[in-house]
Amino acid sequence: MQEDMTSNSFAMAMSDPSLQRKLGTICIFGTGDFGRSLGMRLLQAGYGVVFGSRNPKNSSLLPKGAQVLTHKEAAQTSMIIFVAVHRENYDFLRQAGGDLTGKVLVDVSNNLKRNQYPESNAEHLNHLFPAASVVKAFNTVSAWALQSGGLDANRQVLICGDNDEAKQMVVDIAHGLGLTALDKGSLRAAGEIEDYPLQLFPLWRLPVAVATGLIAAFFFYVLTRNVIYTAVTDGKDISFRIMVSLANKVFPIVSLIMLGLCYLPGVMAGFLQLYNGTKYRRFPDWLDKWMLCRKQLGLVALALASLHVLYTLIIPFRYYVRYRVNTWVILQIKENKTEPFDNTLAWRTDSYFSIGILGYGLYILLGITSLPSVSNAINWREFRFVQSKLGHLTLFLCTLHTFLYGWDKFLRPYKWYLPPAYMLALVVPCIVLVLKFVLITPCVDRAITRIRQGWERKPAESMANGDPKSKRPLML
Amino acid sequence: MQEDMTSNSFAMAMSDPSLQRKLGTICIFGTGDFGRSLGMRLLQAGYGVVFGSRNPKNSSLLPKGAQVLTHKEAAQTSMIIFVAVHRENYDFLRQAGGDLTGKVLVDVSNNLKRNQYPESNAEHLNHLFPAASVVKAFNTVSAWALQSGGLDANRQVLICGDNDEAKQMVVDIAHGLGLTALDKGSLRAAGEIEDYPLQLFPLWRLPVAVATGLIAAFFFYVLTRNVIYTAVTDGKDISFRIMVSLANKVFPIVSLIMLGLCYLPGVMAGFLQLYNGTKYRRFPDWLDKWMLCRKQLGLVALALASLHVLYTLIIPFRYYVRYRVNTWVILQIKENKTEPFDNTLAWRTDSYFSIGILGYGLYILLGITSLPSVSNAINWREFRFVQSKLGHLTLFLCTLHTFLYGWDKFLRPYKWYLPPAYMLALVVPCIVLVLKFVLITPCVDRAITRIRQGWERKPAESMANGDPKSKRPLML
Amino acid sequence: MQEDMTSNSFAMAMSDPSLQRKLGTICIFGTGDFGRSLGMRLLQAGYGVVFGSRNPKNSSLLPKGAQVLTHKEAAQTSMIIFVAVHRENYDFLRQAGGDLTGKVLVDVSNNLKRNQYPESNAEHLNHLFPAASVVKAFNTVSAWALQSGGLDANRQVLICGDNDEAKQMVVDIAHGLGLTALDKGSLRAAGEIEDYPLQLFPLWRLPVAVATGLIAAFFFYVLTRNVIYTAVTDGKDISFRIMVSLANKVFPIVSLIMLGLCYLPGVMAGFLQLYNGTKYRRFPDWLDKWMLCRKQLGLVALALASLHVLYTLIIPFRYYVRYRVNTWVILQIKENKTEPFDNTLAWRTDSYFSIGILGYGLYILLGITSLPSVSNAINWREFRFVQSKLGHLTLFLCTLHTFLYGWDKFLRPYKWYLPPAYMLALVVPCIVLVLKFVLITPCVDRAITRIRQGWERKPAESMANGDPKSKRPLML
Repeated sequence: MQEDMTSNSFAMAMSDPSLQRKLGTICIFGTGDFGRSLGMRLLQAGYGVVFGSRNPKNSSLLPKGAQVLTHKEAAQTSMIIFVAVHRENYDFLRQAGGDLTGKVLVDVSNNLKRNQYPESNAEHLNHLFPAASVVKAFNTVSAWALQSGGLDANRQVLICGDNDEAKQMVVDIAHGLGLTALDKGSLRAAGEIEDYPLQLFPLWRLPVAVATGLIAAFFFYVLTRNVIYTAVTDGKDISFRIMVSLANKVFPIVSLIMLGLCYLPGVMAGFLQLYNGTKYRRFPDWLDKWMLCRKQLGLVALALASLHVLYTLIIPFRYYVRYRVNTWVILQIKENKTEPFDNTLAWRTDSYFSIGILGYGLYILLGITSLPSVSNAINWREFRFVQSKLGHLTLFLCTLHTFLYGWDKFLRPYKWYLPPAYMLALVVPCIVLVLKFVLITPCVDRAITRIRQGWERKPAESMANGDPKSKRPLML
Repeated sequence: MQEDMTSNSFAMAMSDPSLQRKLGTICIFGTGDFGRSLGMRLLQAGYGVVFGSRNPKNSSLLPKGAQVLTHKEAAQTSMIIFVAVHRENYDFLRQAGGDLTGKVLVDVSNNLKRNQYPESNAEHLNHLFPAASVVKAFNTVSAWALQSGGLDANRQVLICGDNDEAKQMVVDIAHGLGLTALDKGSLRAAGEIEDYPLQLFPLWRLPVAVATGLIAAFFFYVLTRNVIYTAVTDGKDISFRIMVSLANKVFPIVSLIMLGLCYLPGVMAGFLQLYNGTKYRRFPDWLDKWMLCRKQLGLVALALASLHVLYTLIIPFRYYVRYRVNTWVILQIKENKTEPFDNTLAWRTDSYFSIGILGYGLYILLGITSLPSVSNAINWREFRFVQSKLGHLTLFLCTLHTFLYGWDKFLRPYKWYLPPAYMLALVVPCIVLVLKFVLITPCVDRAITRIRQGWERKPAESMANGDPKSKRPLML
Repeated sequence: MQEDMTSNSFAMAMSDPSLQRKLGTICIFGTGDFGRSLGMRLLQAGYGVVFGSRNPKNSSLLPKGAQVLTHKEAAQTSMIIFVAVHRENYDFLRQAGGDLTGKVLVDVSNNLKRNQYPESNAEHLNHLFPAASVVKAFNTVSAWALQSGGLDANRQVLICGDNDEAKQMVVDIAHGLGLTALDKGSLRAAGEIEDYPLQLFPLWRLPVAVATGLIAAFFFYVLTRNVIYTAVTDGKDISFRIMVSLANKVFPIVSLIMLGLCYLPGVMAGFLQLYNGTKYRRFPDWLDKWMLCRKQLGLVALALASLHVLYTLIIPFRYYVRYRVNTWVILQIKENKTEPFDNTLAWRTDSYFSIGILGYGLYILLGITSLPSVSNAINWREFRFVQSKLGHLTLFLCTLHTFLYGWDKFLRPYKWYLPPAYMLALVVPCIVLVLKFVLITPCVDRAITRIRQGWERKPAESMANGDPKSKRPLML
């Protein structure tokens, strides 16, 4: 049929009963990947589909059941037109697209990089066709997601536009395709929506940067304190230790610090609320940002803790360790002495391992609860129980694990006046634990609970002029 | 604008074009966290929002674009009023709220603890405003979830109410905000819905209690049999073993028993259906409850098995183990003898490790399949294949692993007549495996498959009086 | 009430106010598990429910609030009739069902095996009742999922049918029950929808088959090269090595090959697009199929890699390993010599472990990102970053890990002219890495990026006859 498409193809299209389906006909400008995938999915969902193309005769890859017409003819078949062409060709559409007055134009375009143009594509389209209602939508859904219909891809359609009726029509289509729609307001939000698919883990940037910085700093610290110190004072090259021993010092240290950083803003917010005497005052911006990426901080710390576990478990079959153990045994034989069994050492090392394992187990549990589908299935109280109660318990166990590791090492003479790295790792977690301990003492806890339920301490000035605000009822 | 709000602000509000949006205007009583977050989200979604407040002039944190009026004025702007104030202030609303006849009042409140009041908040509101239609909704969604719009939080709105039209209006709003709605019936369900956010892992309570009880029991058992026995008979203190050795006995034992308990109700149900000759008779209540928490039983068992894996993997670098190995080598040297290589022992221990690893691998697979998003993406047959076929295979491998661990230890003389703990661990899994083996023998399997497809054995009495029920067709 | 149900029960049902609810009344033929669960859920959601049954008096397990009538009477109460009986009884419905002209019949049936009947159940129903509109739906949702209303089960309703209005009514009911609906087109799709619940991991079949085949092949290869060779040449039985040593050779080898196979089709597609000079030509069918199961290939490879990690970590406490280490120490003592510390060996083995751990860590990250709920929450660019950039980095690290393992082993004389198995494992990954390296060189990368943005190389023939296609604008 596409072969013998003649000039009366438009008349044919109009009389085709498949275009008079209940769900109506939708026009798509552009026959690229996205246009074709969208057309296929719309046809499946029961819509009629008409493509607008430069050369309607030459469109062999289009889905079966769709009509192909010129832009002008296609535009007349439908109230809704999906504009699936690059922004550079919007101008061309003005000549070719015919009368679009009163039509709903759905801009589905994406850019190659952020801020490529001063004005968002959708607003640009709006200026070119002021008589049409432009809606920005569907750019966050990939052609692949439309084709596969799978559950594996982002199925949320972000929508914005100035005309609410036009938006509702697009929302209905999204629902008809099994997608969810989220309204983001007026067309001014189009720039933000167009930037969304170009984002690359924005919430992970800060935590990953913090982790990278800390890893670099502590790597040079332990490199200095171990490898360089030995090379300078003893003249021995133990640089092979970098690959495992040093990595297995740096990863757990950074992991513990980041776990502390994950819970620090929470206790700071608590003290700030106590100080302000109300929860209705905004936190400073930096604290807000910090609190927003706590989940990511915690997950990066979990990844580093997991590396620490793996690095620890391979210890016994490292060549260096086997060599040292064997050498020690041979030495004992030669000197014909037997070291007595040290009960305290057995208790200490076993406790150290055991508490580390329990802490890591809880940590994994926190990680699993952070999976979207799991946190989705639990209520707010359960989420808080896991992330706050179990989270602080995890921090406590991991800190205790580090203390047991250190034991009396802090008493030994410092190399080059540098304290052992593990001691530096303990600073942040200890601060958090001490502050948290203060917050959960009964009297402080009572005060903060009241504040979080909406109570406000009478501010001095309002008491003076009898501001009724201080008597306002508890709000949810 | 909020500054110069005067008495004619209501007239202003009515003439404001933003309030005549297509999606209509919604009124919110209360300017607390929840009210503000809800208002912001409603504005984003294209609704007009009017807050009812005690002091409309003093509301600086409210979202931009919302109006703030007195309760009385606000109530006149909208058919739907969200009541986002604490229950204690419902009474105050009666004086301040003006005429609410025919309005839809959405109660979004939560309590601080379960059964705080004899009557649910929504029913209380209903008694105060009998001329309005009260709908309970949105209390399961947190202010935070509304603000972030994220995928990480529970987005299910539980709804109940006596007026279906009113409920439908609230359902539409929920959908408009990108949330899903689940109708729970009449307003009598409000108590249950209000309890929902106060739940703390109700399905996990029984499994965690069982695990805790078993861990305590087995801990004292192995403590007696190992540490105390050695202390009493040899006078040696080996209490350091508690931290790792004993933990690594108790965790795998309890894990195996709980894995057995996870599959026991399934085989019991099978035998019950065989005995009843029908699937249309209810199981006893305790069996129903047991079957409902199988997933949680299995996941707790998996957590304990994971601890067992970690405790096992640290064995070679424990001080005690290294000490013993070294002592043994030194002893061999001194006595100048070499132990021959025991091929059977090599086979047995390697099989023991290998089967344990495969069992644990399958176990992890079962755990991953239990994640909501994964079990969501597979069909019923696939779910049954994994949870039943692979589940029983896992149980078989883990039981075999324990048998290989024991080997001929059961022949050794019992300390204080107490059998080794691992033997106690084998009781439940062996019962389950034997019963399951009976169920999958061809003749039994055929009978149970017929029953599960709806077939019923002719009961004696109905044969006598020719009850037509026994001839009824197969139902899905 | 169900007890004294008399002949005027139909009149009673019609006057029952609960049947005049806003959401309307729905009729269900069949009182089996599915019918009852559906009825209960519909009642909860605010619908009236009438069951059609052979013997209305004898239906004790039905949900409270539902009516039970004969099929004929029940059919008159509702526009929509859910047919929840086995296909064998459709014929019986023709006699009992009364006048179904103009009704919407929803076929919810499933078969016991695929292709059980030449015609799908829904089409069969359509032939029996040509005056009704048959819609296939709800067969993919289990009775259990309806009852629990949980988030753990598949909640997607696949729908097909020839009447769009009828389909829309069923879609609305699905939404009312909190389920999502996906339209699959006309009733001809019913066979496919009926097959869906009978599928057993269709996308996993090929990857699992590939893994099984490779594991078998490599197992016999290493069995020959190690165990049989030693038995033949030295007459020593080292068959105990099968359980751990050989498994720990086969699993990592197959894992690495499959990781290579997971990324091979991607680079092949790149070269094919370069060769074709366009992305608008279809890939050959085998390549399409291969690309569709890349995720499954990668996850099977990850499972095998995890087994490799566990098998490796138990090495130090294997009896055989301990025996050999101790023997070696004893030998050293007896011969009174000390082996010097080999710095290169320490570097090499530590690097080997360290890179393996980092590779495995990244691999786990890829696995987590494959979870439906996680991939759902990230955008297309982020998904590509993880799966392509981090994926190739993982492949690179794992290949490097294998190279470091091999080191100079490839120089040793081959047993029976068979090269070490690890060398065979390197073939596919190295091909992939070399091809990928070519693809990311600046000039090739530029060409392929242009092609993927829609650019087409002018084909020779079209240049000759001036085909305008080559000048067509960039399409999304």
